[in-house]
Amino acid sequence: MKVDVQENLSRGNLRVVLVGTRNPLNIGAAARAMLNFGFTRLRVVNPYEVAFREARSAVGAREILETAEEYQTLGDAVADCRLVVGTTSVGHRELAHTLRRLEHGAALIRRRMQSAPVALLFGSEKFGLTNDDLSHCHWLLRIATADQDHSMNLGQAVAVSLYEISRTKARVTAARPRRGATAAENEHITELLLEVLRASGYMNPVTAASTENKVRRLVRRLDLSAQDAPVMLGMLRQMRWKIGVGKE
Amino acid sequence: MKVDVQENLSRGNLRVVLVGTRNPLNIGAAARAMLNFGFTRLRVVNPYEVAFREARSAVGAREILETAEEYQTLGDAVADCRLVVGTTSVGHRELAHTLRRLEHGAALIRRRMQSAPVALLFGSEKFGLTNDDLSHCHWLLRIATADQDHSMNLGQAVAVSLYEISRTKARVTAARPRRGATAAENEHITELLLEVLRASGYMNPVTAASTENKVRRLVRRLDLSAQDAPVMLGMLRQMRWKIGVGKE
Repeated sequence: MKVDVQENLSRGNLRVVLVGTRNPLNIGAAARAMLNFGFTRLRVVNPYEVAFREARSAVGAREILETAEEYQTLGDAVADCRLVVGTTSVGHRELAHTLRRLEHGAALIRRRMQSAPVALLFGSEKFGLTNDDLSHCHWLLRIATADQDHSMNLGQAVAVSLYEISRTKARVTAARPRRGATAAENEHITELLLEVLRASGYMNPVTAASTENKVRRLVRRLDLSAQDAPVMLGMLRQMRWKIGVGKE
Repeated sequence: MKVDVQENLSRGNLRVVLVGTRNPLNIGAAARAMLNFGFTRLRVVNPYEVAFREARSAVGAREILETAEEYQTLGDAVADCRLVVGTTSVGHRELAHTLRRLEHGAALIRRRMQSAPVALLFGSEKFGLTNDDLSHCHWLLRIATADQDHSMNLGQAVAVSLYEISRTKARVTAARPRRGATAAENEHITELLLEVLRASGYMNPVTAASTENKVRRLVRRLDLSAQDAPVMLGMLRQMRWKIGVGKE
């Protein structure tokens, strides 16, 4: 994925904030997901384990862990942000907040990131964000899971959220268009195949004409690519040669 | 998220296939992500640790682990599937396959799931899917990460993929769904074709293994329909019979 300068700037505006995380492996996993999707600014509030910077689960994202900023209070951790969004994967009991599905909320976050710092909050593995944490949020983001009773793994929730925030807006990205075989190549393949089939005794003389049509249509349905057509031709030539020899 | 009956049926058509997974915690994490997004059918091919069913990382998804099906070969694990898709997060060196971005590929998978079993493959943590594994795939799914040099954590890759597959459908598509050949039929065709090619002197003994992979991939790219597969089998059987006779 090409990331232009403007894109990079706006990614720098997102702060991933982990609140009260218990397992340092999850902090490492979050860092790894950040690296995958091009985000760098990690903040941690009161992690249970002070030695989280060594978490091996970060794999290549060591630098993100090393430069992570540590805070005593959530208020301090989000002080410079102009939008603060909490996450939840389980249907939230107390609906004091606007709850947005990830698909829609991510678009709002993306827009705000273009001009201002945005904080995205993830709560502890056991309890999620507390009511106190939620009181710092403008609104909540919910990952629409099929199952309301089971929360998501923290690293997976971070990965899915960052994926959606950096997801291409449906616009056409059309991979390199596929080149199909020419009609002449398809016809050449058809003829060779028919020759081999005839020599093999596959064709019933009575129905030969209709079989020929069927084979011709079948070859078109294969919709061979420009690369595959010559390979197919090579195979059929070799078979014809072998069967030709066999006949004599 | 409300899940209606039709939705449930089509979710049951997705098989998440983990190939050569080393760390049982990752199998558990994959199961947890499956539970979150409403998928239940897990298959494992040659896991390093036999005791993966106890992985605590599954949390609430114990039942998915317990009913996971274990296979010795990838061919067996995908035999009943009509679409086989491999995943990769790193830009792939050898582009023998069509590579689709997750946003677009997921829509195709969703459509096929409405009428037929689909396999979604994830390779080992260290090496991903091997060329041999890839030769069983119709095409590849790539999660567009910002960073091509670092692979994703397995559980996170599963979560992001399943999130996108179950993401709100942008629009209702569904032309009459096309039924593809099963992986078992494709493999049968591959084997017969290889037999005929060997007997024809097409295979160079030195490069036979790589040619076999190329032929296997070629057959998958043909993306045969359920109607065409038996026709192709019939043709190849007849050729084999003829060439067998010719040899004597």
